[in-house]
Amino acid sequence: MSPLPLITLLTDFGDRDSYVGVMKGVIAGINPHLRVIDLTHQIPPQAIALARFHLFTAFPYFPAGTVHMAVVDPGVGSARRAIAVELAQGSVLVGPDNGVFGGVVQQYRVQAAIALTNPAYWRVADPSATFHGRDIFAPVAAHLASGVPLSAVGDPIAPQTLVDLDLPVYQTTATGLMGMVQVIDQFGNLITNIPASRLHNRPWQVIWADQRIPAATTYSDVPPGHLLALIGSHGWLEIACHRGSAAQQLKAILGDTVTLTWQLTD
Amino acid sequence: MSPLPLITLLTDFGDRDSYVGVMKGVIAGINPHLRVIDLTHQIPPQAIALARFHLFTAFPYFPAGTVHMAVVDPGVGSARRAIAVELAQGSVLVGPDNGVFGGVVQQYRVQAAIALTNPAYWRVADPSATFHGRDIFAPVAAHLASGVPLSAVGDPIAPQTLVDLDLPVYQTTATGLMGMVQVIDQFGNLITNIPASRLHNRPWQVIWADQRIPAATTYSDVPPGHLLALIGSHGWLEIACHRGSAAQQLKAILGDTVTLTWQLTD
Amino acid sequence: MSPLPLITLLTDFGDRDSYVGVMKGVIAGINPHLRVIDLTHQIPPQAIALARFHLFTAFPYFPAGTVHMAVVDPGVGSARRAIAVELAQGSVLVGPDNGVFGGVVQQYRVQAAIALTNPAYWRVADPSATFHGRDIFAPVAAHLASGVPLSAVGDPIAPQTLVDLDLPVYQTTATGLMGMVQVIDQFGNLITNIPASRLHNRPWQVIWADQRIPAATTYSDVPPGHLLALIGSHGWLEIACHRGSAAQQLKAILGDTVTLTWQLTD
Repeated sequence: MSPLPLITLLTDFGDRDSYVGVMKGVIAGINPHLRVIDLTHQIPPQAIALARFHLFTAFPYFPAGTVHMAVVDPGVGSARRAIAVELAQGSVLVGPDNGVFGGVVQQYRVQAAIALTNPAYWRVADPSATFHGRDIFAPVAAHLASGVPLSAVGDPIAPQTLVDLDLPVYQTTATGLMGMVQVIDQFGNLITNIPASRLHNRPWQVIWADQRIPAATTYSDVPPGHLLALIGSHGWLEIACHRGSAAQQLKAILGDTVTLTWQLTD
Repeated sequence: MSPLPLITLLTDFGDRDSYVGVMKGVIAGINPHLRVIDLTHQIPPQAIALARFHLFTAFPYFPAGTVHMAVVDPGVGSARRAIAVELAQGSVLVGPDNGVFGGVVQQYRVQAAIALTNPAYWRVADPSATFHGRDIFAPVAAHLASGVPLSAVGDPIAPQTLVDLDLPVYQTTATGLMGMVQVIDQFGNLITNIPASRLHNRPWQVIWADQRIPAATTYSDVPPGHLLALIGSHGWLEIACHRGSAAQQLKAILGDTVTLTWQLTD
Repeated sequence: MSPLPLITLLTDFGDRDSYVGVMKGVIAGINPHLRVIDLTHQIPPQAIALARFHLFTAFPYFPAGTVHMAVVDPGVGSARRAIAVELAQGSVLVGPDNGVFGGVVQQYRVQAAIALTNPAYWRVADPSATFHGRDIFAPVAAHLASGVPLSAVGDPIAPQTLVDLDLPVYQTTATGLMGMVQVIDQFGNLITNIPASRLHNRPWQVIWADQRIPAATTYSDVPPGHLLALIGSHGWLEIACHRGSAAQQLKAILGDTVTLTWQLTD
């Protein structure tokens, strides 16, 4: 653990209520030296796939040893497991076992996984049935970030039993690739599920309905108001609009099909 | 005071402007070691009752010694008092004397109350008539969190003169209880003004218009899309919808009547 | 630099995505002792003038030595310069050279200005073409706040070449002043571009369409629901509504004309 341990928070709690503040109060009460960074609390209610995306794309930018806590938890109070997962690189994941950590777990080696069954590290022995963020996840994250060993907070579980989501993957077609819009960001950029690694060394373009969207490197490669396709900062094929919103211009929604065609170099 | 003093902020300033950031700048300028936690800044403009709710329900989750600053202040610049209240358990409240602290003051013993009349602890001797958060409350909170004694920041006032709101309370009826929706949260949960303490040891159900809403322990006790009534994490009777929004499904608004009936055990 | 260095963030990234959290992760990875304060992330996409307003009005409330990072950057990836500007009073500005710092630069003496051309202080030598906030500005801000001298991060540029916006200024008329609405805040207050310094020592009123709006000192000087004009906390002539929204009542939008007339003292 770092000498200045760091916890990140990712939830669907929004900012209207004091739910996030209360979790930070619980953390500060356990160890006032812990620092907390918000990833986002604006995940639409119970949108696990979106939370999963934000966690695994943000993960590489945090120091090893960070405790990442995610609470998008429609199954709170049910039989779904509460877990902590330690990665070989030193960071720890804390939250419900519902797939929210699936993207990180696919990409990093798991050192150990634990079901949070030890109430000694909960806020109270009789937690609320609807707010495990406050009563289980925040206190466990605070204790882990303060140096409590993972093995103390519960019982080991087999890493291969960790839940993941069954998400659509892009397809290879006769003329290119076919994927979908997995995230629409604040700017109306359409982030697809086609990884940058598939786009190297070969010219391509995107076809959306009857429009041809040219490949570019950055927004200003096209005139204001024009669409472009590029490798976005998350590392995925992205459709954007220079000084505008691609989502608005294309009336795009999550899940829309994105077609990429290789360009003939003639 | 804690060696790592903590200030919480609760306002109706929203996040579009830099009002909250400016108050944090003022606090950091007085003592860079102070930590600040946001409760929420999304109180609808001037909604004192909602701010009061969020403060007293969040309060128990913060360490003793925390300075809680609340600025929902439609009377800023008028004759309403600016106050600091020290509780016997060690925490301090700072803000306008308009009822925003009423819920906490009802539940915790007041050690001392002070009108903030000493300009030596303001940011400037001639504060803005419209932004006491920046010019009076934030600097006084920062000084108090840094160890300035309460008696230094102004003149004592009688705790029994502190303003509170006159809020509707639930009623006992022939067949159960009748209350109202006091808060609708981010998830569309309807938080009523009927306390959990009234619901123990006796079966009950909620009647809403012509619907019967069953009592449950957690969301997943009913199928997705179904309504349920439960003891929420704040400690009040709450109406929720499993993987949905009770507010949307019932078209509920703040102040709507909630009827609870005791169930015959036959 | 302060022993507890402070970075402020001002962006148009919103709070739906994890862009802001990722920048904080990058900062924490460079120096975990740095403190970060959010000014706002709700600047409408690419609204440089509004970001400029929030930065220069918030600036005076932060300690000297603060590193202010602003990323409202429609030209990211184009030829626009990335800059750091050190002011004589000790604070530093980091962001794109597009006018976002213009208000501060007009009011404070510039000590040195640098184009951020030294990749040794970037996150990676090959930054994303679309997210310089993460790959250039955040790491440079973190290094500067940690004591790296300004001259190390790039090549000197002439302060007089720094870009500023060409914003409308208020006019003096035969009977008073004519300005415009430059910001509408969370409360619906209309913040004009007429500075408080022009309003001293002489009675005045505002004329809006066919309405006369009286000068006042604070909101409660008029009955609830009534309009008033006052010197706002930012230091500009402001039109407000006691316990209401002037923007809603007047159907005002950014850029609307505001007419002030001197009052005859007869």
